[in-house]
Amino acid sequence: MTEHTPIALTLGDPAGIGPELALMAWRDRDTGPGLPPFFLIGDPDFIERRASELGFLIPVAEVGPDTATEVFPRALPVMPLPSGMRVGAVAGQPDPLNAGATLESITTGVALVRDGAAAALVTNPIAKYVLTQVGFAHPGHTEFLAALSVAPGEAPPLPVMMLWSETLAVVPVTIHVPLRSVPDLLTQDRVVATARIVARDLRQRFGLARPRLVLSGLNPHAGENATMGLEDRDVLEPAVAQLQAEGIDIRGPLPADTLFHPRARATYDVALTPTHDQALIPIKTIAFDDGVNVTLGLPFIRTSPDHGTAFDIAGKGVARPDSLMAALRLAARLAGHSA
Amino acid sequence: MTEHTPIALTLGDPAGIGPELALMAWRDRDTGPGLPPFFLIGDPDFIERRASELGFLIPVAEVGPDTATEVFPRALPVMPLPSGMRVGAVAGQPDPLNAGATLESITTGVALVRDGAAAALVTNPIAKYVLTQVGFAHPGHTEFLAALSVAPGEAPPLPVMMLWSETLAVVPVTIHVPLRSVPDLLTQDRVVATARIVARDLRQRFGLARPRLVLSGLNPHAGENATMGLEDRDVLEPAVAQLQAEGIDIRGPLPADTLFHPRARATYDVALTPTHDQALIPIKTIAFDDGVNVTLGLPFIRTSPDHGTAFDIAGKGVARPDSLMAALRLAARLAGHSA
Repeated sequence: MTEHTPIALTLGDPAGIGPELALMAWRDRDTGPGLPPFFLIGDPDFIERRASELGFLIPVAEVGPDTATEVFPRALPVMPLPSGMRVGAVAGQPDPLNAGATLESITTGVALVRDGAAAALVTNPIAKYVLTQVGFAHPGHTEFLAALSVAPGEAPPLPVMMLWSETLAVVPVTIHVPLRSVPDLLTQDRVVATARIVARDLRQRFGLARPRLVLSGLNPHAGENATMGLEDRDVLEPAVAQLQAEGIDIRGPLPADTLFHPRARATYDVALTPTHDQALIPIKTIAFDDGVNVTLGLPFIRTSPDHGTAFDIAGKGVARPDSLMAALRLAARLAGHSA
Repeated sequence: MTEHTPIALTLGDPAGIGPELALMAWRDRDTGPGLPPFFLIGDPDFIERRASELGFLIPVAEVGPDTATEVFPRALPVMPLPSGMRVGAVAGQPDPLNAGATLESITTGVALVRDGAAAALVTNPIAKYVLTQVGFAHPGHTEFLAALSVAPGEAPPLPVMMLWSETLAVVPVTIHVPLRSVPDLLTQDRVVATARIVARDLRQRFGLARPRLVLSGLNPHAGENATMGLEDRDVLEPAVAQLQAEGIDIRGPLPADTLFHPRARATYDVALTPTHDQALIPIKTIAFDDGVNVTLGLPFIRTSPDHGTAFDIAGKGVARPDSLMAALRLAARLAGHSA
């Protein structure tokens, strides 16, 4: 991998907004801080048709990973799916017929980044229920990537989702689970394993010499001395003590509600939270359009925009590429640190 | 009650920051949008001593509710406790000896506002554990106010806590309870009763002809079609349908994480949330210094600053009066609508 190694971008669900965001991101590649060279893994003819339907005068060029960087200044580089599969998706009409292309784009992207032919992997959004109809058996996009990151039969790494923006980074310790199950899922081991990965990747990938972590409480006011729930005292405090004993700079559990205003944010690099909403509410409140999803714990760099397939607006050209562009920029920055 | 009727401000815990905030608010009464006339219910000598300890050159005058407005331009009006009780609190040193004065200030304030001698009640923060040591038996400050708002033996009204700022208003449907107990506490009846009070008070007190309510989901992504928890579909959807059938303008349950960025906030007047943190995180992230706590559902207007006694910084003069000043201004505004 060299500084010219491009970033691989997956197709995502081709009936969603992913393809048009890729086109818009390439069109806007020189605005603001600029974009690193990237290539989309899909079907060049399909991308050309989508551009044409949208009225985008954007050149599309068929490439391989080795030619994408060279082509990037003059056209959106698109690498065909290795199987030769074509994509016939209609914008806004999710269809299990598209699932094969969605999945092959992901498996191809992982193979390229593991081989060093891509510097990092950026993934467009998928709709799990579409993939489930053809037998997709992973809990989600990220778990699928974790499974692909090791040889078949090996235990996959624990992937950790971080939502990142220039002003706030958060890690929900539990993610897409019913709120009712959170107190029992929130074990000391889970908190410790998550925080170790966060601390390690913030050092190794983000280049922070001594990352400052905070952990929010599960209960209101972090349980207020165990008067409102016991988990903060009995689970989170011991987890923090264990991590501190390992030399990790972490404080908590702290009341979640007072952790995200500007003065509080200045005191840490990343906030871990027991629930999904404790993490996602503040970052989407502060950085709705340019939050980036970063998966920590994988043996390669993976980022993705912090939104879904948005079938309701797909093909209309109204979706905003800000988050995808931020994901591409962050992937390049992390690849630089890791090189 | 006339437009000259002053606002009653309780002492709060006199070892906390309440007394100095009252002094600072009076000192800054003409800054920004200005403050309405108010009087503190406590011990004028104690307030004078605290001012002197802080080095504040602020005149303090002993008043009754009928003279407070006239005195207000030239001194901080302080009404003695009716019992004659004196206050000997030391800043930063909570002491059950102060509990009697704290409680008498509250009962006096409620009596005055119920009688129309005060236009509204603004309460300084208390520390429940200090009061508990002398036998205080209410779940909290607000429940105590609800009990005082009716004749002894009558069923108190359901008080509803709203956190209000110029940019966002939120109502947590459950408040100071362990997160583990939230899913079972969140009944359809509770949501409906809460939303009815919110809709009524936003009309009657805030002067909104047709207040627009939203309800966030309990589970991540509002349960995503009951794939991540059932409560959003089985409890919250029926509650919203029932409220809509009553003519209340309410939408939901909506994913909590995408409900608080500027474009989303423009679509509603108040957001109801199942958990404490879903409501408190966004408002404390956006409006940390000037959020106001408003109690809806009471037969009088009650606001309070959105912070605690802060014993650790009491008596140092470093606490910020912004939230108390916002609470006084909002109380006056609501009293105007209700007059």
